Amino acid sequence: MRRLQFVLVLVLATTIINAQKIMGFNEANAKSQLDWEKQYDAQLNAKNLDTWMQFLTSHPHHVGSPQGKANAEYMVNLFRSWGYQTEIAEYQVLFPTPKTRTLELLGAKPYKAKLEEPGLKEDKTSGQKSEQLPPYNAYSADGDVTAELVFVNRGIPADYEELERMGISVKGKIVIAKYGGSWRGIKPKVAYEHGAIGCLIYSDPADDGYSAGDVYPEGPYRPKDGVQRGSVMDMPVYPGDPLTPGIGATKDAKRLDRKDAITIMKIPVLPISYEDALPLLQSLGGAVVPAAWRGNLPITYHVGPSKDKVHLNLQFNWDLKPLYDVIAKLPGTELPDEWIIRGNHHDGWVNGAEDPISGMVAELEEARVVGEMVKKGFKLKRTLVYCAWDGEEPALLGSTEWAEDHQEELKKKAVAYINSDGNSRGFIGAGGSHTLEPFFNEIADAVIDPQTGVTIKERRYASNMVNADKAARAKMMGNKNIKLSALGAGSDWSGFLQFLGIASLNLGFGGEGNGGQYHSIYDSYDYFTRFIDPGFQYGVALSKTAGRTTMRLANADVLPIDFSSFQKTVADYVSELKTLADNMRAETETENRLINDKLYDLAKDPKKGVQSPKPKDVVPYLNFSDLENQMAELKTNAEEFQKLYANGTQLSPEKRKELNTVLFQVERALINEKGLPRRSWYKHQIYAPGFYTGYGVKTLPGIREGIEERHWKEAQDNIEIVAKTIEVYTNEVKQATSIVKPKAF
Amino acid sequence: MRRLQFVLVLVLATTIINAQKIMGFNEANAKSQLDWEKQYDAQLNAKNLDTWMQFLTSHPHHVGSPQGKANAEYMVNLFRSWGYQTEIAEYQVLFPTPKTRTLELLGAKPYKAKLEEPGLKEDKTSGQKSEQLPPYNAYSADGDVTAELVFVNRGIPADYEELERMGISVKGKIVIAKYGGSWRGIKPKVAYEHGAIGCLIYSDPADDGYSAGDVYPEGPYRPKDGVQRGSVMDMPVYPGDPLTPGIGATKDAKRLDRKDAITIMKIPVLPISYEDALPLLQSLGGAVVPAAWRGNLPITYHVGPSKDKVHLNLQFNWDLKPLYDVIAKLPGTELPDEWIIRGNHHDGWVNGAEDPISGMVAELEEARVVGEMVKKGFKLKRTLVYCAWDGEEPALLGSTEWAEDHQEELKKKAVAYINSDGNSRGFIGAGGSHTLEPFFNEIADAVIDPQTGVTIKERRYASNMVNADKAARAKMMGNKNIKLSALGAGSDWSGFLQFLGIASLNLGFGGEGNGGQYHSIYDSYDYFTRFIDPGFQYGVALSKTAGRTTMRLANADVLPIDFSSFQKTVADYVSELKTLADNMRAETETENRLINDKLYDLAKDPKKGVQSPKPKDVVPYLNFSDLENQMAELKTNAEEFQKLYANGTQLSPEKRKELNTVLFQVERALINEKGLPRRSWYKHQIYAPGFYTGYGVKTLPGIREGIEERHWKEAQDNIEIVAKTIEVYTNEVKQATSIVKPKAF
Repeated sequence: MRRLQFVLVLVLATTIINAQKIMGFNEANAKSQLDWEKQYDAQLNAKNLDTWMQFLTSHPHHVGSPQGKANAEYMVNLFRSWGYQTEIAEYQVLFPTPKTRTLELLGAKPYKAKLEEPGLKEDKTSGQKSEQLPPYNAYSADGDVTAELVFVNRGIPADYEELERMGISVKGKIVIAKYGGSWRGIKPKVAYEHGAIGCLIYSDPADDGYSAGDVYPEGPYRPKDGVQRGSVMDMPVYPGDPLTPGIGATKDAKRLDRKDAITIMKIPVLPISYEDALPLLQSLGGAVVPAAWRGNLPITYHVGPSKDKVHLNLQFNWDLKPLYDVIAKLPGTELPDEWIIRGNHHDGWVNGAEDPISGMVAELEEARVVGEMVKKGFKLKRTLVYCAWDGEEPALLGSTEWAEDHQEELKKKAVAYINSDGNSRGFIGAGGSHTLEPFFNEIADAVIDPQTGVTIKERRYASNMVNADKAARAKMMGNKNIKLSALGAGSDWSGFLQFLGIASLNLGFGGEGNGGQYHSIYDSYDYFTRFIDPGFQYGVALSKTAGRTTMRLANADVLPIDFSSFQKTVADYVSELKTLADNMRAETETENRLINDKLYDLAKDPKKGVQSPKPKDVVPYLNFSDLENQMAELKTNAEEFQKLYANGTQLSPEKRKELNTVLFQVERALINEKGLPRRSWYKHQIYAPGFYTGYGVKTLPGIREGIEERHWKEAQDNIEIVAKTIEVYTNEVKQATSIVKPKAF
Repeated sequence: MRRLQFVLVLVLATTIINAQKIMGFNEANAKSQLDWEKQYDAQLNAKNLDTWMQFLTSHPHHVGSPQGKANAEYMVNLFRSWGYQTEIAEYQVLFPTPKTRTLELLGAKPYKAKLEEPGLKEDKTSGQKSEQLPPYNAYSADGDVTAELVFVNRGIPADYEELERMGISVKGKIVIAKYGGSWRGIKPKVAYEHGAIGCLIYSDPADDGYSAGDVYPEGPYRPKDGVQRGSVMDMPVYPGDPLTPGIGATKDAKRLDRKDAITIMKIPVLPISYEDALPLLQSLGGAVVPAAWRGNLPITYHVGPSKDKVHLNLQFNWDLKPLYDVIAKLPGTELPDEWIIRGNHHDGWVNGAEDPISGMVAELEEARVVGEMVKKGFKLKRTLVYCAWDGEEPALLGSTEWAEDHQEELKKKAVAYINSDGNSRGFIGAGGSHTLEPFFNEIADAVIDPQTGVTIKERRYASNMVNADKAARAKMMGNKNIKLSALGAGSDWSGFLQFLGIASLNLGFGGEGNGGQYHSIYDSYDYFTRFIDPGFQYGVALSKTAGRTTMRLANADVLPIDFSSFQKTVADYVSELKTLADNMRAETETENRLINDKLYDLAKDPKKGVQSPKPKDVVPYLNFSDLENQMAELKTNAEEFQKLYANGTQLSPEKRKELNTVLFQVERALINEKGLPRRSWYKHQIYAPGFYTGYGVKTLPGIREGIEERHWKEAQDNIEIVAKTIEVYTNEVKQATSIVKPKAF
């Protein structure tokens, strides 16, 4: 019994001591920081989130709307009242809005699409018709086209390979694609590349509608006439104002002519509801679709073309519109030129409660409590910059223009960018720069899940384990580390991470507050508080998580950067790419053998007239050795630095400053000023959105897309480019090590 | 050049010599057999298949119908005209037909189910309303029940585990299940075990309807009011007449009282269309179903219970009905007491063109040409027995009663049973006793696919390769052997294989003539000739395949049995079972750890009230050593026999007869007279239908179901039983070897 008690005491003591440690803090500062975090948690108030959401979602607040401007002013006033230095950064951007939207099926059984979401008595803001942007895709081309319709499944390149085997061309046709399977802008882009002259995108109930659950207002899922608005600008080329790539869209900025803006879609594109899609899909003749293409409408899906023609007429206002970014600063007491930036957008497609206000109000509450604590004596070494971005929905406009506009200053001063973009109930989701992974895991260990009372890290682990397959379970068992996902596109980090090389994180809860009002008039306060996060419990949990992240970065003696975590992750990516090439080689070999042995010819149904696939060029062996050697060098150096990392807190303030500068500038080493192949705006060599997936991230994108698209020389060239990048990065690591290394005596 | 030519000549010569060899034939007999096969192919005539199908499907021909009797007489006359000794074997069996069928949803939005398939002008026999059996499930109980409805997905045991976690009980409720995922009779059986008082089964369009393709009469798929009739007798316990298990249902047979017939369902069961199912499913309240349970009706699926009650009233006529099995014999010239039995059923649920007449007419054409050839001098060593079974649809009645009735004679004389049951366009499918696998592959090498001109084996291989995943492709590459599937339930082999231990094969083409009129009034001549096998090309291909099989078995000098093929297959089963137990052990361990670590409690949505699973008992290590030792012994002996097999054709006629008797009696060694646990009728130790899957075969069923159902002692006991079975089998193999082994001198 005595022995056991002793062990227990020891465990308890160790726990207490551990609990006092925070990465990058000396012991005294850690204790003080944790004390302030306790006060911080205690002062967070869900009622504020509720109140602010009611105001911010009271009317549609898209770019250029009166409520959008009112919201910016409302927030500026709040920040100011909490002691922040505030400004509204204004930009002038191209933001098209619809003048004409017509879609009709001609012929014997004509149908005129409704293209409207009706107001509901159960949703008090849904009837604000005159203020709402109707369903449309921003940056669609103007166009008045009449043609036969073809169903292209998700509208990604693989779908067109399948269509080609069926002998179906979309040349001169209008295509109809299901939402999902790629970012929406990929669909018209690929359709255009294949010769289509118009594109419709609809939400199939299999993905987004009654199949998942009861539809609104009975349940949270997309009703028959609900439509997903959204941008179709070619953001994988560059985001932000199409007329001012690479520079801020200030009033007097030099602008491209609209016809030279390559990110504007070349054909008219329109999103429609599944109710409007049904008669169009029913008009399709031709072959029955492959099994994997089926949706859940009560019909047999055919690829087309349609017997009757479809008429699509879209005309837009192509005015410049003002953007209102809210910027609120709290200057650092010791290191005012090191900035921790925290942002969420404030514009919505319509009333936008979940997207984006649920994240915005969490950020506001963070800023409020930090401001209150500062008044009570809480000191922040570094400068905090709270941002409320405008124009995220059309094209990450506000964040991109601000980042472009302030690029020189940001390159010098920005330590990290912490993003959120809407929030829901459930499990923490986190993506970002892998140098920040151990740091973020400490945060996840410190925040308690409001529904279960365990840490958000424990709950995430439970969910991962329960939902994993056998192999993944075996791999994960006992390892609770939250692996940060890599960031592609989808929210406001792109300007910071991929254009400027600023370490970034994206945070949010989700998984339990599921629904289907994304980018619709029904994403409202009524919807959010009934179905998504009633009581704003997870709004407060996000405030706790992102607030800790911001405050710890602001106050760390030594910035909480872990090179080994970065190195291990990139090494995994390299090994993935080698496997990818090896698998493609083996599959190409097998596939070509099957083709040459005529097995496809023999296996196919002669009555169906589907063509056998064509042989593909063999996959060469790529030379990864330069990259692998650089990765090995990085490994040694990263490990050495991490061993000595704790020394950093003991350095003189000057040396610490020197060290910290290296630590936050290191992400800049991952930028190659020439950018990625065919899209020079994207300069980060580790993370980028996929050229043909959009949201979907491509890690080591120059190499990966070279392999995936079978551009072997490009892949090889990019291996060398990434190898050089890693070499430069490693030199930074060595520099950091030289600062923390005890001098030889 | 000369060298190359020489090699070519050699290859050519070898090919010619090989082409002349047939397993079990000496050289001269092989040559003669192949010559006759050429004549056989040449005389097969698709027009006959067409003519006979027109007659046989001209009216509904279910058990007890005038057309059923007329068909039997028609075929007896045909067989007789071709020179066969014919008889109609008559039995008296319990065959319930509906008197009352009522299904209605009560309450505020009442709905009375139509329960009818309308006649169509495009289908000339579909309007024969007065002669049709309406949609029903044979051997449902009588019952008049009113209760709330619960949706149970496929209605298999795993679904009830899921329902239990959701807190839903079916006690005192009527359940509605989707067709598919198990044999239909499993659904009411498991529902009854869980306390349900009624069961509805419907065809969801996701599985069987518009999702797969255009519906009848536009296309071949099931229309909104199409219904799948079918038996729900508990055939995994025993098939055949429920009143006469194990004996022939002759006029004077001793019969059970109906209440003691355990294979009759205990609750009322009714199959319905998806049109009738829709309002019932819409009436369900409660939780939304798990994603894997969703169908493709345009609704959100809920588990229930329904707000309003459902009223189901089913009353049946429980009369005995006559069965008419057609038996046509052609006595062997040398070995009249060795029988090769070839069968297909002739009864249909309604007009039954695809099921079963498409297979029946192929068999008739085989018999016709064989009869013609015999008249021209073709000699058959063994006796051919062509059968046309009645009453397969309700419960394999005709074949089972005949096999039970003639069990002693069959045990002595039956060499093999070759079954077919409907036929379609595409690829050869073959299942059966693994001693026959190399023999069957020789046949598949000799039959030419009518659409592509390659052998049916080449085409099967092409299809397998094209449709396989990466791992399966790698495993199969270059190996064109057609692996026989193991036989569970589903057609007329059960009485022969699983009750009597007679080596069996089941043959048929399919994969391209897909449709959805299974067990409906629309499975008609019009449907078949438009969509399934227009021109009867594959009907003729089936005649070629099954005809060769029958004729070679009839004429082989030494029966074409391969013990090594059997041994390898069973060794694979043993190794599967060890892996199954190991995987269950590992999964139970992981699952229990997740439960005990409260990961399920933490991962679940507290707002949904789903319960975490309960821990399961640990999986013990089973002792497979006795079985493995017996398998090793079998391997050695099987290999030795196969090395000496070719000697057999050189033996004296007496010795050959002795050898052949061992070779066809050997399958009897796999019978254990005590039968399987809880179902003594099934005596085969290697193949059985699954107790909870029905059609789905369970190989080494005593062991496998013991493991799957976590009856560890039963599993261990059955390992010993199978080990003993293999020991007896090996002794037979040794006996065969001793006959072909050159005597020591």
